[in-house]
Amino acid sequence: MHASARPGRYNPGVIPRVFAPDAGTTAGGIVALAPDEAAHLTRVLRLGPGAAVRVFDGRGGEWAATIRDGAKSRVSLTLGPPLAPAPEPRVAYSLAIAVLKGDATDEAVRDGVMLGAAAIHPFVAARSEVSLAALARARRADRWRRVAIASAKQCGRATVPVIHEPVTVDALLTGAPGPLRLQLVEPGLGEPSLHLADVPVPSAVTLAVGPEGGWTPGEVAQARAEGWLALGLGGRVLRAVSAPLVALAAAQAVWRDR
Amino acid sequence: MHASARPGRYNPGVIPRVFAPDAGTTAGGIVALAPDEAAHLTRVLRLGPGAAVRVFDGRGGEWAATIRDGAKSRVSLTLGPPLAPAPEPRVAYSLAIAVLKGDATDEAVRDGVMLGAAAIHPFVAARSEVSLAALARARRADRWRRVAIASAKQCGRATVPVIHEPVTVDALLTGAPGPLRLQLVEPGLGEPSLHLADVPVPSAVTLAVGPEGGWTPGEVAQARAEGWLALGLGGRVLRAVSAPLVALAAAQAVWRDR
Repeated sequence: MHASARPGRYNPGVIPRVFAPDAGTTAGGIVALAPDEAAHLTRVLRLGPGAAVRVFDGRGGEWAATIRDGAKSRVSLTLGPPLAPAPEPRVAYSLAIAVLKGDATDEAVRDGVMLGAAAIHPFVAARSEVSLAALARARRADRWRRVAIASAKQCGRATVPVIHEPVTVDALLTGAPGPLRLQLVEPGLGEPSLHLADVPVPSAVTLAVGPEGGWTPGEVAQARAEGWLALGLGGRVLRAVSAPLVALAAAQAVWRDR
Repeated sequence: MHASARPGRYNPGVIPRVFAPDAGTTAGGIVALAPDEAAHLTRVLRLGPGAAVRVFDGRGGEWAATIRDGAKSRVSLTLGPPLAPAPEPRVAYSLAIAVLKGDATDEAVRDGVMLGAAAIHPFVAARSEVSLAALARARRADRWRRVAIASAKQCGRATVPVIHEPVTVDALLTGAPGPLRLQLVEPGLGEPSLHLADVPVPSAVTLAVGPEGGWTPGEVAQARAEGWLALGLGGRVLRAVSAPLVALAAAQAVWRDR
């Protein structure tokens, strides 16, 4: 769903967006791209000197830019004027996602970024079929950070959410940021205690979503004891990989967030 | 996110669900399964006579059942008492989805069923990269019907939405059911005219989502002329395949639908 071409408007469909974390602090208006970003421009998009791009720094800054010189994996840009990226939500959404099977967590991260998450907290629940040690060995958090950058490029955000290192479910339930903490519960696992419209719009919220096998009764009880509220989203069983998207979409719609 | 085991509760995680469209009208409480449903029970789940299943008819009926006899692709069931399936939404959501590239429409159909759609209207938009003739040759609507049945099994619904034959975008925009017709528009393509909270909860709504390349300006103008309202969902560009899920989740949350 690309925006149409219109001068001066946010328009990701026409001008490629590249990520350069130091774009805002560079000297002389020249930005050197990391090799993978450079290769994307030169090899995939086949762009050369003079081509117009947009560059964003992942912290909310975005600029017009022109390719200054470059070949293969070495590209530098000349920065132009600042541009308005896609708006950030007013509520800071922290998305806590149980690590899923295979590559499904990638999809959840991608969708969370697209829906405007401010931070992502992966965790290993009792029914997650993976260990923290295996995630560390495979450097999965680094992979999710690359997924987050790619999703930010696609959806027009200039802010790349922080992807935290995976933690245990206990650490998540005791330590996740507030003030509002919501545990998404499936039909049949206790009665949902909350509709999103029944709480004042928070400044920040953590939304926690369980793995394919669901939360254990112990995890639900611990969450209640730690002050998390149970949130139900309709009477049907959601796929675990889709639940974060449904939860974020619901919260933003009810809270009239942008 | 399976429900936990609890007697008398909706509990898809433990007892397999099978689809039998004539389960409600069968004589003598014996239901013969179609070959693919039978093969799933005997070959994939390796169930035999005496095993407990749940059978649903796609029109809202669900029953306890027991495998009576069967081998490979021939299985019959003995029907037991009726059971409560996952609740249906109060609003009749018709989801109009532009046919997407590759198999992405399958995902949109699966997710639409999971979120409670009552009907799905595939259509070919100006920027869809497929023709109605190619869809008919490939019998894609039949494929989407199989996807819808599989999704209903997973999410606990006993109602399988009607999957209509694909139509042109012109036929969709002129003929889609009302009373409320909403066209999901991306950031930058006209100003969204509506927030979901600003309309009374309708008895039925059609939500139309464009293809990867977005609606054309002509399609947006035609929708306005036909009385469709423009609906925006946040300032970020949604992936076309995710947009139906976001739209349904938003509507159900704002309208407090189940």
